[in-house]
Amino acid sequence: MSSNKVYKPKPVSGFPEYLPEVRLVEQQWLDHIRRVFESYGFCSVETPSVEELDVLSAKGEVDKEIYVLERLHKEEGGKDARLALHFDQTVPLARYVAQHFNDLTFPFKRYQMQRVWRGERPQAGRFREFTQCDIDVINVDSLPLHFDAEMPAIIWETLSSLPGMENEKIQLRISNRKILIGLLEGKTNNIPEALRIIDKIEKIGKDEVTKLLSKDCAIDDENIKIIMNLVGHDGYYILQDLTASNEMMAQGMEEIKFVKEQLSNLPEEAVKVDLSIVRGLDYYTGTVYETVFTDDPGYGSICSGGRYDDLAGQYINKALPGVGISIGFSRLFAKLLEQGKLPIARKSPADVLMLLPADDQHDKATEAAQTLRKNGHNVEMYHKAQKLQKQLSYAEKKGIPYVWFPGDGEVKDMATGEQVKADPQSWTPHE
Amino acid sequence: MSSNKVYKPKPVSGFPEYLPEVRLVEQQWLDHIRRVFESYGFCSVETPSVEELDVLSAKGEVDKEIYVLERLHKEEGGKDARLALHFDQTVPLARYVAQHFNDLTFPFKRYQMQRVWRGERPQAGRFREFTQCDIDVINVDSLPLHFDAEMPAIIWETLSSLPGMENEKIQLRISNRKILIGLLEGKTNNIPEALRIIDKIEKIGKDEVTKLLSKDCAIDDENIKIIMNLVGHDGYYILQDLTASNEMMAQGMEEIKFVKEQLSNLPEEAVKVDLSIVRGLDYYTGTVYETVFTDDPGYGSICSGGRYDDLAGQYINKALPGVGISIGFSRLFAKLLEQGKLPIARKSPADVLMLLPADDQHDKATEAAQTLRKNGHNVEMYHKAQKLQKQLSYAEKKGIPYVWFPGDGEVKDMATGEQVKADPQSWTPHE
Repeated sequence: MSSNKVYKPKPVSGFPEYLPEVRLVEQQWLDHIRRVFESYGFCSVETPSVEELDVLSAKGEVDKEIYVLERLHKEEGGKDARLALHFDQTVPLARYVAQHFNDLTFPFKRYQMQRVWRGERPQAGRFREFTQCDIDVINVDSLPLHFDAEMPAIIWETLSSLPGMENEKIQLRISNRKILIGLLEGKTNNIPEALRIIDKIEKIGKDEVTKLLSKDCAIDDENIKIIMNLVGHDGYYILQDLTASNEMMAQGMEEIKFVKEQLSNLPEEAVKVDLSIVRGLDYYTGTVYETVFTDDPGYGSICSGGRYDDLAGQYINKALPGVGISIGFSRLFAKLLEQGKLPIARKSPADVLMLLPADDQHDKATEAAQTLRKNGHNVEMYHKAQKLQKQLSYAEKKGIPYVWFPGDGEVKDMATGEQVKADPQSWTPHE
Repeated sequence: MSSNKVYKPKPVSGFPEYLPEVRLVEQQWLDHIRRVFESYGFCSVETPSVEELDVLSAKGEVDKEIYVLERLHKEEGGKDARLALHFDQTVPLARYVAQHFNDLTFPFKRYQMQRVWRGERPQAGRFREFTQCDIDVINVDSLPLHFDAEMPAIIWETLSSLPGMENEKIQLRISNRKILIGLLEGKTNNIPEALRIIDKIEKIGKDEVTKLLSKDCAIDDENIKIIMNLVGHDGYYILQDLTASNEMMAQGMEEIKFVKEQLSNLPEEAVKVDLSIVRGLDYYTGTVYETVFTDDPGYGSICSGGRYDDLAGQYINKALPGVGISIGFSRLFAKLLEQGKLPIARKSPADVLMLLPADDQHDKATEAAQTLRKNGHNVEMYHKAQKLQKQLSYAEKKGIPYVWFPGDGEVKDMATGEQVKADPQSWTPHE
């Protein structure tokens, strides 16, 4: 039995853990997302949780949030490569495609739903371990723009039908980085900084953006006016009258129009062109996506991504353009959970609790349970012939909707109290 | 495009990674296992990948195989608890049950299918990251013996119907530690050592076990004969004529007989009583399980577990007996893969490739694809109006069984070459 010294465990900050009734809904979410991804022909890839530190830092940026693995007791003479937990699924994808290049068929469409880790300081609302759900399409040399339009369609279908998300107002906001980059050309000699400032418009507001573009990027008032007109209004209408100031800008305008038109079968509010969207990463070269709660835009993007020209240049001498998008699964799930919007109902996947009114009914109970399972039902057996009231209360506590009396072959609906004769071979619950 | 300095990535020893066609079967395995577990009413639990080092080492044994996390750039003054990757799912289960005790309903039946990590030296056939599939039932104070019989039934159902495992000869071997412990009482003053020696009988053979029991445990020849008679033959027949030498032994005999009788509906060869099974861990107190390939017993157990009296005594002052079993998923999957026994057939989950014979058919193609998806099919779209031969060859390479001609509304079976008119609203592939 229990020892004297008890170490009372507590939650570890930033590492979410759920009770079975919440985990059950989390699993439904993951199943749903996977189902939609597969319905568009994306194959599953999982990579190890670790990469060599040299791979994670091949781009030259070594992030202080990286968790490195150390053996608790290091042995001497160990010359293994240093391993670190991946902090996203993009670096592993690039490494995977480069490493297995000759064994993959292109366009390569993969989804990846795994945990990633970031060594953030413990603080409320910040996860140090969380799940991302990514899709990417990679091709060699060039990739049709149709794929850029497929992404928002998939994400809209995924997010709008997640259990508990049905009434949430969400919107995909899309842009094309070429438009702003083209527009800024010749207007400042610090385009990356100007993009970073514009990217913050939702957080810091238009006035502050105006001020910073002048102060930090030396853009004159007239040009700031042009920029602010572009990023401050519904981009799709702006586009109608906009004149491209160069080839890059023209290309971006054409691309975003094409993508938006391809999405005309989605509800009007699903996708909005918003030319202020640029995404922080320089990595993106064309279409960019963000997804917000329209009544809580300050919460930030729950699903982001974009088009890139060069997936894996640091690992392989091939031009590999692609487009991808990532759902910040854990953060989104935690938000809905906190707001009490998840359909949390039961602690068990069982549809039926097989009762044991008396010990001598055990064989009959086992047989009925096995028959029900063969017909697709999930059945938990009660293995102790306790008072019936206790057994029923157990079913109720676990949220098991039906109980079965093996002696009489009767089934009781826990919600309505209705009890009827039933054959385990043919029984189906009424919906 | 690609930079000049290319870091060519290589596999990391001990961290398996699969191509999409293999991953697809791995996912089928995981789905199948989960389906069987849920059909017996086990709920899903996932715990963080890490535990506090104090939790992992609460039993006093600090394993040198533990991977500790370190931030790449440590900041000063950090006083976080040290975190380490879990090396199994039993310690996390114990911690979980203790921590959430008041929120769980008992008997608590949970399954857990996650990755675990062990910092082994890199060597062939040894994984440093691998997936385990565990089920456990925990109760407060006492737990009916029926659960001990449920475990082998579930495992047999799971393993014998995994895709690719259908023709493998496997067998669950069960025993009850009380029998050997009872028998050894008074015959040696080092029972744990005697158990460890007997546990190795499959590896080192009967002669060596006989020698070691005499040499290391000072058991006399007559008693060694009695022991070897017990562990060297089919345990169930041995049990019929065996006389218990004390209460513990009698109890163990009664329990194993009960468990074996409860399993009479399984095929004769599925479960064998083998009194030499003891399992290494002192943790187990009654029924113990191992699972072997009967034509390759030296490969070791692919699924093991047993009954324990005290799940979480180091974290909570409660008597929590349980019984559980764990499938060594990654090792089993890798074995079948290596032997070429997995049904590897396709690189994509798509049932249908929607062709694009000409650009002006794109809208029609999108519409047909969307209708097929709504009817449960997985459909990948070909987004470039290339030569038909190229599109068909792409479907073939990815193993997509059907291609759809959106213009004529025809579908072609890639295996038979048969091409017929079809309505996306009502089409079903013939099996």
